[in-house]
Amino acid sequence: MEYIDGGVCAAKGFKAAGGHCGLKGSGKPDLALIMSEVPARAAAVYTKNVVQAAPIHVTKRHLQTGLAQAVIVNSGNANACAPQGEENALAMCRYTAQALAIPVEAVAVASTGVIGKSMTPLMDRVRTGTQDLAARLSAEGSGGAARAIMTTDTVKKEAAVSIALSGKPVHIGAITKGSGMIHPNMGTMLCFITTDAAISADALKSALNAAVKTSFNRISVDGDTSTNDMCLILANGLAENPELTEADTDFKDFTDALTGLCVKLARAMAADGEGATHLITCTVTGAESIATAESIAKAVIASSLVKAAIFGGDANWGRVLCAMGYSGVVFDPERVAVAFCSEKGEITVCEKGRGLTFDEALAAAVLSAHEVVIAVDMGCGEAECTCWGCDLTYAYVKINGDYRS
Amino acid sequence: MEYIDGGVCAAKGFKAAGGHCGLKGSGKPDLALIMSEVPARAAAVYTKNVVQAAPIHVTKRHLQTGLAQAVIVNSGNANACAPQGEENALAMCRYTAQALAIPVEAVAVASTGVIGKSMTPLMDRVRTGTQDLAARLSAEGSGGAARAIMTTDTVKKEAAVSIALSGKPVHIGAITKGSGMIHPNMGTMLCFITTDAAISADALKSALNAAVKTSFNRISVDGDTSTNDMCLILANGLAENPELTEADTDFKDFTDALTGLCVKLARAMAADGEGATHLITCTVTGAESIATAESIAKAVIASSLVKAAIFGGDANWGRVLCAMGYSGVVFDPERVAVAFCSEKGEITVCEKGRGLTFDEALAAAVLSAHEVVIAVDMGCGEAECTCWGCDLTYAYVKINGDYRS
Repeated sequence: MEYIDGGVCAAKGFKAAGGHCGLKGSGKPDLALIMSEVPARAAAVYTKNVVQAAPIHVTKRHLQTGLAQAVIVNSGNANACAPQGEENALAMCRYTAQALAIPVEAVAVASTGVIGKSMTPLMDRVRTGTQDLAARLSAEGSGGAARAIMTTDTVKKEAAVSIALSGKPVHIGAITKGSGMIHPNMGTMLCFITTDAAISADALKSALNAAVKTSFNRISVDGDTSTNDMCLILANGLAENPELTEADTDFKDFTDALTGLCVKLARAMAADGEGATHLITCTVTGAESIATAESIAKAVIASSLVKAAIFGGDANWGRVLCAMGYSGVVFDPERVAVAFCSEKGEITVCEKGRGLTFDEALAAAVLSAHEVVIAVDMGCGEAECTCWGCDLTYAYVKINGDYRS
Repeated sequence: MEYIDGGVCAAKGFKAAGGHCGLKGSGKPDLALIMSEVPARAAAVYTKNVVQAAPIHVTKRHLQTGLAQAVIVNSGNANACAPQGEENALAMCRYTAQALAIPVEAVAVASTGVIGKSMTPLMDRVRTGTQDLAARLSAEGSGGAARAIMTTDTVKKEAAVSIALSGKPVHIGAITKGSGMIHPNMGTMLCFITTDAAISADALKSALNAAVKTSFNRISVDGDTSTNDMCLILANGLAENPELTEADTDFKDFTDALTGLCVKLARAMAADGEGATHLITCTVTGAESIATAESIAKAVIASSLVKAAIFGGDANWGRVLCAMGYSGVVFDPERVAVAFCSEKGEITVCEKGRGLTFDEALAAAVLSAHEVVIAVDMGCGEAECTCWGCDLTYAYVKINGDYRS
């Protein structure tokens, strides 16, 4: 598995484009289009929020065929809890279908932005914008598309990998966005993945579920699960590998590559969490099961107090133990060890559930790195899990105290 | 039921004192003592965190007799995950027992402050401080005791009520603290309640559980459930009412008075949440059950995004619906109405799950009040519930980015 350039257009037969159609007052890019030359197998996972945005409903319906050929995405308006939501989401698919001369059911749609604002007055702009993007689709369009789906993100997020399946080079690429309203419970963001692998519908679904489970479902920015999250994959088969099924030995390679790609993007999302100055990685080892390790790691990265401590460069491991304690997992605190690690060094601050005297200067140095690892050893088993989050900063409060206006 | 002065000393036969013994470097009060003239029936509820501080263990053991006569409480050090924790918690009881000439099992102990720091080097100060407080116990000591249990609290919290039971005046008073690491799951703070009611052990326990359930368990500051929380009640019977049992008609009056007192203090704690500038009250009506109403209300007041929006004076009701959607409750968003209310007015922003056009100037005025009510109508039943929280501010981040040092 090798990381390559090209993002969502790295796989054979995929083009993309992004631009500004007028949904954002700022003039920033707000509309993205991804297209496969040929119909592609499609699978997706969606937010588990009970309140789901209109594009989620429409995309679910369209993907019932198991195929899709294009994805239209806007930022600046979530099209959630808004009048005429379904009509407008469907209209976005129709504009795309007309511009690309494909069936409307072959189009997936996603939106991100403010909840509760009607898109109706802006639909003319969306139509014109879609036509414009369709005319500008290109194999170099990943960056433009990645920028157009950003909301409070500060950097665009794209990545791609190449692997060999049965001797054929296969590519997987993706763009993603997500900065606030991010919490482990499916996607919690938008992610669009493309691959030229030939793969059965079941295998594609299974690989996507496995990849999401250990990547996007293991990050948290603020504990809020959004109404609009979607992670969608298109596989167009143009790599001409023998069609992959779950029984093939290659299936693990494909899933591993997809997972690696998703983990890379998940880490990028956590690091770019609203207002973040640190990427927080919590590794839990020595646990009884992966499930308990995951619950513990999630509680730690989601704790406001842990997040604020890391922002302040404070090796306040008591808050780590406290978060572990309310994670819902029953464990023996007397076996727990906690260390803080980074490229600047490593410092063990707690052993057998008791605080150690430690070098505060070294601790401050360790915590000054951009990525801080909170390493928890439960001392009671072999299972482990890693989750990612970010610190809680003044900027998070500023961004979210004044987002809608 | 009438609110009266006197706090934790309002009930007959209770004295208290607070002072500085040297646990806090700042010179602020850090040790409090409460005593009943005669042994009292005792009941308590504790944190549900798996990691429990040493004083929790010791108090649980001592309260097995069903009786207690004194409570010793320190702030500045949580005595959690610290070496010799149990020995030191027990020593605090012993110092108190010696100074007051009562059995060590008659003393309850509680601590609040930094996790993981040993109290051992400071135990001499605690002993001297305890002797000093024992000599200064007075019926006017509630305020001093309330101040001595504060950590990041900005105001002391005490209250008392008077009711008549079978013609006898009965008093209930309390002091409480709690500002950060506060989340609904038992007390999530320290609260000490005293009453001169004569009441059976079962009835006391039952009344306390009922009161805590609808007061302290319905507030959240930051989603973090502490390791040290305790809510303890002492009932010394000096009011000479006929001993109250759960079968008595008076029992409801007693429970209502106790609940009212606890709600008053819970609201004070939420309003004084770390860095808070607003008290956020979420009322959920029209729900199918109290349990679902409570889950919805808790999700709303605990949402970082809702909290930041209220700080910013932003009527961002989409975040309210989003939080409801991930609360775990299944409901029909199309029936939901949301309004913001305060002493400045009332504004409905969402009906049948769709946004309404509303007067932004009026919304800004409504949100400028100190207490902001988020009124959610589920439109599907008769049950209701109210929970309390506070906004998320720069000051919260500042306080918690730099707490330990």
